[in-house]
Amino acid sequence: MRQTAEGTARPAGRPRSEKAEKAIVDATLDLLGEGIGVAELSIEAIAARAGVGKTTIYRRWSNKEDLVVDALATLKPPIPPLSGTSVRDDLVTYLRVLREESSHQRTRCIMNIAMSDSERHPRLAERFREIALEPRRAALRGVLRRGMETGELRADLDEEMAMAILSGAMMWYTKWHRSGVEPSEDVAERIVDEALTGFRASGW
Amino acid sequence: MRQTAEGTARPAGRPRSEKAEKAIVDATLDLLGEGIGVAELSIEAIAARAGVGKTTIYRRWSNKEDLVVDALATLKPPIPPLSGTSVRDDLVTYLRVLREESSHQRTRCIMNIAMSDSERHPRLAERFREIALEPRRAALRGVLRRGMETGELRADLDEEMAMAILSGAMMWYTKWHRSGVEPSEDVAERIVDEALTGFRASGW
Repeated sequence: MRQTAEGTARPAGRPRSEKAEKAIVDATLDLLGEGIGVAELSIEAIAARAGVGKTTIYRRWSNKEDLVVDALATLKPPIPPLSGTSVRDDLVTYLRVLREESSHQRTRCIMNIAMSDSERHPRLAERFREIALEPRRAALRGVLRRGMETGELRADLDEEMAMAILSGAMMWYTKWHRSGVEPSEDVAERIVDEALTGFRASGW
Repeated sequence: MRQTAEGTARPAGRPRSEKAEKAIVDATLDLLGEGIGVAELSIEAIAARAGVGKTTIYRRWSNKEDLVVDALATLKPPIPPLSGTSVRDDLVTYLRVLREESSHQRTRCIMNIAMSDSERHPRLAERFREIALEPRRAALRGVLRRGMETGELRADLDEEMAMAILSGAMMWYTKWHRSGVEPSEDVAERIVDEALTGFRASGW
């Protein structure tokens, strides 16, 4: 899991070992999902839940934080390939993934718990950002840059600000608006259209 | 605390009782800040920490969730009066408060812990929204409506979407950008200026 998450080639693996790896990752997510914080989580408990020995865990992960990071990364699958047809379509695809994810209660719950520990585990938060968040931000940045190059977007657009507006608006809808009321079906399209009103070069 | 937070008049209180109330609220926040989840938090522990009897707590709060909501509400002070001079100034003031708050590590930590429990305590999340979040949203909505009435903002602006973009972008900067790197001093101004590029009526 760790190797694929980092995008490097994995050595030809034995099926049995992959199965153990999946069981370990699942056990970690299960325990976090039950409300056990990262500090309280023990390799013993993970091993017991996964039905493997502690050695099997330590063979792949030298410490608990690395295992938690890899487990969390499986909850943030990579963004699907962006078509490149139009900036609007690619942005909508991107935001739909963010939305889809946040609709999984278990995922939200686990993320909340792990991130509420990030103050106490800064290394965990940092590696998670590296493995799961940075590749996404790079994909989004790529769409915006392409739009600025083709002239579809303003040449002086602040990329980071544009990312904050797009992803932030979706976070707001999924996080705070969640008083039982789900955001409307077309919330991704609506965010993108409103944001593009400001982002577009004049003439588009 | 509960009564003032709800904005209703409080009966002439005895100073000693106010002092106890503050001690109870502080004890609740202390315990949450130490990583004790809402589920684990007990009235006994709060009473012990505050140096009061359990009866003193039950005299004011009929249950733990109400006490937690009121304690959390003290971490979200009301937005200062908005001058009404210009939409831009009012929006900047609003976003500066959001930013300021998120820079307090203890506040963030307590909010994270309490909100990570919101899946298991939906009533808590709902009352918190009512007491601490809705009044703010009303203030922000007021600024946007005024701007649409004066013609400074587009008449067809979707208020809720505008709120999502403004507050969401600030959430993004303070939450995800926080890899040790603080957002720039003028992040509130920059968010507002970028958002207004799209929000303004043509001619402004």
